[in-house]
Amino acid sequence: MQGQLHSSVAFIEAIGDDLVGAGGKRLRPTLSFLAGRLLGADRESTLQVALAVELLHSASLLHDDLIDDAQTRRGAQAAFRRYGNVVSVMSGDFMLARVLGLLAETGSAEFTRLMSRTAAAICEGEVLQFQTATLEDFSFDTYDAVIEGKTAILLASAVEGVAILSGADQEQREALVRYGMHYGRAFQIQDDYLDLLGDAERLGKPVGGDLREGKATYPVLLLLLEHDEREARDILRRHASRGDDVARMIALVREYGADQRTRARIRLEAELAAAALDIFDATPARAALRTLAEREIARAR
Amino acid sequence: MQGQLHSSVAFIEAIGDDLVGAGGKRLRPTLSFLAGRLLGADRESTLQVALAVELLHSASLLHDDLIDDAQTRRGAQAAFRRYGNVVSVMSGDFMLARVLGLLAETGSAEFTRLMSRTAAAICEGEVLQFQTATLEDFSFDTYDAVIEGKTAILLASAVEGVAILSGADQEQREALVRYGMHYGRAFQIQDDYLDLLGDAERLGKPVGGDLREGKATYPVLLLLLEHDEREARDILRRHASRGDDVARMIALVREYGADQRTRARIRLEAELAAAALDIFDATPARAALRTLAEREIARAR
Repeated sequence: MQGQLHSSVAFIEAIGDDLVGAGGKRLRPTLSFLAGRLLGADRESTLQVALAVELLHSASLLHDDLIDDAQTRRGAQAAFRRYGNVVSVMSGDFMLARVLGLLAETGSAEFTRLMSRTAAAICEGEVLQFQTATLEDFSFDTYDAVIEGKTAILLASAVEGVAILSGADQEQREALVRYGMHYGRAFQIQDDYLDLLGDAERLGKPVGGDLREGKATYPVLLLLLEHDEREARDILRRHASRGDDVARMIALVREYGADQRTRARIRLEAELAAAALDIFDATPARAALRTLAEREIARAR
Repeated sequence: MQGQLHSSVAFIEAIGDDLVGAGGKRLRPTLSFLAGRLLGADRESTLQVALAVELLHSASLLHDDLIDDAQTRRGAQAAFRRYGNVVSVMSGDFMLARVLGLLAETGSAEFTRLMSRTAAAICEGEVLQFQTATLEDFSFDTYDAVIEGKTAILLASAVEGVAILSGADQEQREALVRYGMHYGRAFQIQDDYLDLLGDAERLGKPVGGDLREGKATYPVLLLLLEHDEREARDILRRHASRGDDVARMIALVREYGADQRTRARIRLEAELAAAALDIFDATPARAALRTLAEREIARAR
């Protein structure tokens, strides 16, 4: 990945080093490599998919940061914020340029098409989330579209890309897409769950972060859309700005059983992800992919 | 172009309509179509290059706006500014996603590679400009790298792309790249010239805009680098914030003959652009490409 981010401009080189050094879970490359094992793909193709998807993911995180920053921070901008804008936009764009380079290396129009659709869907999901931040016309369909763009489509691409480059058949390719989409939804809903109902100490940050940014998470949406819960709506609208708003929202979620229903949805998605792999032989790679998805069930507790 | 920017998300669709409706000179597509004529390329390939390059150009303008905005505007951000960030970043990214789709359509790894290099160079130019805004270590080499990333490389890609897709030979391809690079430099230096020495009425805006943003333009660089002109440096450093700074800079530029030398450089670049086309037969397409480049000489007067 570091090799892909080389630049003659020292500043860009430094950003690349920082980003690669920062690490992270590298969930998407893990999925690509396991899909590569599952399909008997060659190492080179698998690596190209893993790199392209991870670079696209990193670019989208950088650009998201900028938007989130714009929405949540107001007033005076310190020098580092302005510097931060350039870093976020240009290093993200630089990564996208490198994604193009990787696509040229693969020489696969089909994989290029997939990455085009994926990148467009990520943008659409982001804009949809921004556009619907007012909660007018927010529905479960909108929520699903947002989390698909935010997480699921890229997880699916991490495995679908390997299917394309390794010449897997249509059934295998579709099974991997289903796996990625269901796993992605489980992952994102679990993220929503933990943000409000997780353990602050284990999260390493206070709970209710999404709520304070005015983002509608799954358990809160259950209150709004299934119960038309006015108090929950007011708390979300004011970005949980009063002292006990977060605690009150948690109480409401538990009162309506929205915590249990959120866990049930996570379990369903994780199980659908695991079941999608039934068509493959029982190998260690298949077991590892299943374990990854099923881990989301255990995490949201 | 409108067809490329279709989206199921109404907000993105609206942005696409706005951008296409806004029009502009469409210089890059014009270059692609003339190169297509010159090389006898088929209409479909030419259109794909024109679209891909124009979308990349539009995306880079949107992202540049954001950075310029970050550098020049401070303090409170009105709602429309925050909205503007999302528009700039996400609609730019959406366009880049569509560039990928076009590249998949062409199925050309070589053209994809070109667009990857071009996109990376645009980012590098932008970061370099930002990084060197302090004027420390600013040289003519840096200036050339900035204007190449900002303008020249994309003009070159508009014609080189057509050469690639139409299977032109190496000599023709290199001639077109030279044409685009020299024309691009002429174009950008002319832009620099007019910003300071142009006619405010014909420009439709006050002169000295770049100076007030602290950007080192070619005539000003001549004063700084060749004459170590302290007053010019001070004016640039304070972003021409005093009442008569712009007028004073113009007087200094004329005093040192930097206006004439700027025009001489524009003429040189435009002539090199025109000469690069010598290898082609004298057709209307060749004449039109030459006229375009030579127009820059007449404009900077």
